[in-house]
Amino acid sequence: MKVLIIGGVAAGPKTAARLRRLDPDAEITVIERQDLLSYAGCGMPYYIEDIIKDYDQLLGGATIRDAEYFETQKGFTVHDQTEALKINRDTKTVTVKDLRTGETRDLHYDKLVLATGSSPFVPRMEGTELNGVHRLYNPHHAEAIKTAINLGCRKVAVVGGGLIGMETCGAFISRGCNTTVLEMMPTLVPNLMDEEMAQLLENYLVSKGVKVIKGSPAAKILDDGKGNAAAVETADGRRVEADMVILAIGVRPNTELAVEAGLEIGPTRAIAVNEYLQTSDPDIYAGGDCVECTHIMTGEKVFAPLGSTANKHGRVIADNIMGKEMKFPGVSGTAVFKLLDWNCGTTGLTEKKARSLGYDVVTTITPRCDYSSYIPGAKHTIIKLIADRATCKVLGCQVVGEGDGVKRIDVVATAIKFGSNVKGIADLDLGYAPAYSTAIDAIQHSANVLRNKIQGIAHGVSPIELKAKLDSDEEFILLDVRGKDECDAGGLKDPRVKNIPVNELKLRYNELPLDKEIITYCVIGVRAYIAERVLRGLGYEKARYLDGSLTSWPYPEYLN
Amino acid sequence: MKVLIIGGVAAGPKTAARLRRLDPDAEITVIERQDLLSYAGCGMPYYIEDIIKDYDQLLGGATIRDAEYFETQKGFTVHDQTEALKINRDTKTVTVKDLRTGETRDLHYDKLVLATGSSPFVPRMEGTELNGVHRLYNPHHAEAIKTAINLGCRKVAVVGGGLIGMETCGAFISRGCNTTVLEMMPTLVPNLMDEEMAQLLENYLVSKGVKVIKGSPAAKILDDGKGNAAAVETADGRRVEADMVILAIGVRPNTELAVEAGLEIGPTRAIAVNEYLQTSDPDIYAGGDCVECTHIMTGEKVFAPLGSTANKHGRVIADNIMGKEMKFPGVSGTAVFKLLDWNCGTTGLTEKKARSLGYDVVTTITPRCDYSSYIPGAKHTIIKLIADRATCKVLGCQVVGEGDGVKRIDVVATAIKFGSNVKGIADLDLGYAPAYSTAIDAIQHSANVLRNKIQGIAHGVSPIELKAKLDSDEEFILLDVRGKDECDAGGLKDPRVKNIPVNELKLRYNELPLDKEIITYCVIGVRAYIAERVLRGLGYEKARYLDGSLTSWPYPEYLN
Repeated sequence: MKVLIIGGVAAGPKTAARLRRLDPDAEITVIERQDLLSYAGCGMPYYIEDIIKDYDQLLGGATIRDAEYFETQKGFTVHDQTEALKINRDTKTVTVKDLRTGETRDLHYDKLVLATGSSPFVPRMEGTELNGVHRLYNPHHAEAIKTAINLGCRKVAVVGGGLIGMETCGAFISRGCNTTVLEMMPTLVPNLMDEEMAQLLENYLVSKGVKVIKGSPAAKILDDGKGNAAAVETADGRRVEADMVILAIGVRPNTELAVEAGLEIGPTRAIAVNEYLQTSDPDIYAGGDCVECTHIMTGEKVFAPLGSTANKHGRVIADNIMGKEMKFPGVSGTAVFKLLDWNCGTTGLTEKKARSLGYDVVTTITPRCDYSSYIPGAKHTIIKLIADRATCKVLGCQVVGEGDGVKRIDVVATAIKFGSNVKGIADLDLGYAPAYSTAIDAIQHSANVLRNKIQGIAHGVSPIELKAKLDSDEEFILLDVRGKDECDAGGLKDPRVKNIPVNELKLRYNELPLDKEIITYCVIGVRAYIAERVLRGLGYEKARYLDGSLTSWPYPEYLN
Repeated sequence: MKVLIIGGVAAGPKTAARLRRLDPDAEITVIERQDLLSYAGCGMPYYIEDIIKDYDQLLGGATIRDAEYFETQKGFTVHDQTEALKINRDTKTVTVKDLRTGETRDLHYDKLVLATGSSPFVPRMEGTELNGVHRLYNPHHAEAIKTAINLGCRKVAVVGGGLIGMETCGAFISRGCNTTVLEMMPTLVPNLMDEEMAQLLENYLVSKGVKVIKGSPAAKILDDGKGNAAAVETADGRRVEADMVILAIGVRPNTELAVEAGLEIGPTRAIAVNEYLQTSDPDIYAGGDCVECTHIMTGEKVFAPLGSTANKHGRVIADNIMGKEMKFPGVSGTAVFKLLDWNCGTTGLTEKKARSLGYDVVTTITPRCDYSSYIPGAKHTIIKLIADRATCKVLGCQVVGEGDGVKRIDVVATAIKFGSNVKGIADLDLGYAPAYSTAIDAIQHSANVLRNKIQGIAHGVSPIELKAKLDSDEEFILLDVRGKDECDAGGLKDPRVKNIPVNELKLRYNELPLDKEIITYCVIGVRAYIAERVLRGLGYEKARYLDGSLTSWPYPEYLN
């Protein structure tokens, strides 16, 4: 059995290693056009940030992942700096070129694996060839960027406010760079988070000194007359000075070989594969960043390139090649990222996506400590939980904030996999000790609130809805139910604000008209919800409370 | 509607708060015999350790949870220092006594809630009344213990090596006390972890200077002739000097009132309740530490008193009282605890328990970094994963070590809730970024290894099995597949050890006899597994590898 694998970074070596363990005799060859193998692509932002000091760490640390390592330790052959030029399906060969010697030759395969990865998208615009314009593809690029910072580069424009944009942006802030993020969509991380969560993230970036320019694509990179980048200009004419420009607009699957070989390409423009990760040619498998995945909740094809998925693919491909039938069920849309002190993540569907699919969506936003507040170091994580009203099925979850929300993303990702409803999460027997969670874990608190809403016990107003109301001249009462001192120290800035502390509500409710809408708020939403319940008990049927209250309020311009 | 709640710590106030939100008009009264309400019982070890500096933090911090707080903020009445003497089911009243005035009176109820909690078990033995003998029931006790340490108490004996024993033991070590733990069973945390995991925990304690005495119960506490504790003696005559003795033998449900009222008591000796948390009297509910729970995996009744469960109970009871039919499905046996720098936990069934239930158990032990090893601060967590061979269903998981294993316990607890098999865990789309996990998350690596075993690809030897073999004069080869330098620096100490580095195995395999059993080992088990595969490929059908290898090896006396 001859297995040829094109791609030596993630899915490729994983496939090869698993194959070797399953079959001591198979002839396994990996080719890779770059000079670096199996590198830690996901570690590059951490290297730029100088959390990782040593370049070699990106290449395997003490044991560099070179051809010799794979030969002696893992038992398969790797040819680096060797490019696959063409797949010849009729002869079951791949024409490859040794990039050092220029020599070409044909390698035979019984089974071929495409693990060609993805590449950062470089938009067609003026100036992408200038000095100081970078994309972040492999450790060489990370090294170039880090060197530029070390040499004094201080004005950075990150083009693209997605996952990689956020991670690199964090690195630049941390390195003291004057940083601007440009995102063509109206919100940051547009595919990962809904507007209000993205806005909280943006506020955090702004608080760290980042400038955020949204709603118009970068249109050109201007030069300084000497071949160096000097500024980025958006299509609507905004201009950002920058001596370094990072193109982080997203990645595109490397499909040229597959296209040329006539393999089926999917609706996402990545290589189409079945659940065994076979392409339209049953002798050719594909995995990692070059293929599309099935979203387990929608059945839709999605392009979700992640190192974790690539590694799963490698195992599945090897098992199938060796006749151990194995399915890859798909992804749940999970993505997490660290942005300085914030832990951010998403899983499942965003509210926007769920609405577009026709779900009758119910959501809640709850800020909550990640562990018991009496243990020093406990921090808030702000959780948005999304469910379907009719079935109570959990649809998605997003987290932002200093607290450990990522742990809760894993819980929801697990629950989603099994089609859990909201009660399913509330019922979980999660690990509780004060150093790890609160007696009611943050995600279970979220689930409880969401159940209250579904059952008509709690009535929330989302920040987006309240913002629209504040912008209108609608009549309603915005009831700050905090103590007078808290209220005097600042809150929502609007003539419709009135302060009655929750514990005075039963004595002072007659200050409130019965027929007007009342929206209560406090710090995290607990008192606001209690106040809603008190008011409804007193006949105020239009009382609702502000989801997540001030802690989760995304629009600082409405605060005093 | 008059609801009377006996117990003002966890389940009681939670029930009352939820009731108030569901019904603004119900008459809700909580009685509590102690002078402290709603205190952070789980925080007490952290207070002793001085992680929590301020005593008031145990009582609610800035807002002390006293009767006034509940009245004004939560809208229900609490009478503290008021003891329930008797439930009169015929008249639907409870006779209560004001412990300040001695006055008794009868309080009427439509629905009664028993949230009477549990109390530390005080064994019948000589000396429990001596000065310096403590149990850890409420913050007063925590305060007394902390004061004793502050005043110079330095020799502590913790009687009981369960969850509370471990947590308090950690506190004492941290405070510089000379600490001994006494556990009557042959291993620490006997109901939570299997032998080898408990032994790893013990090794860690020993490395921190703790003395561990196992296998015989404490039989008496000796005095110094002045009424102070001076030593603890075990039934088999071992003696530990101690000027402070903590009784942490476990807690017992407070069922006196229920028993006297003729309510059904379950097989665990806690109050029996149905899934709506109703006792055998439909007008009397019970929740929190005084009731037994159903284990969702076995259907068995278990006594699993935890603050997290008590809070869930409170919600369920309130919903049912208010006619919102709500079930409490049970617990999964999850328990987590922090022991100095170690994060420990368990969920589901232990191997021992699973075997006793007749499962054909397959297990694996895998040490793995909690996040990418190239990010500073990544630490190993040692995971034991347990499954049923026939159905591949996940049965349980245990973690110990510095790494964040508790996060993985939550994932397994969630998966278990939905009856996941091992592949279900391997397939999860968990959040991956280098700061949060490895590309193959630690728990998914565990699941992959376990699948390999179930499929006959990997063949493990557990540390317990290998220990028995080392103690025998069986012939076999213990093959250290690490590099020669690593091997020379130390490993298993046995004449049957031979060193062939994994990468030399294909050249040197003829040094090994084909007919003998070969057990490979390395540092974490990865090279050992590869070596097993190589050897089997060469016809060594008796090759197996040591589960978890040296990193998870629990018996230091076999190491050199």
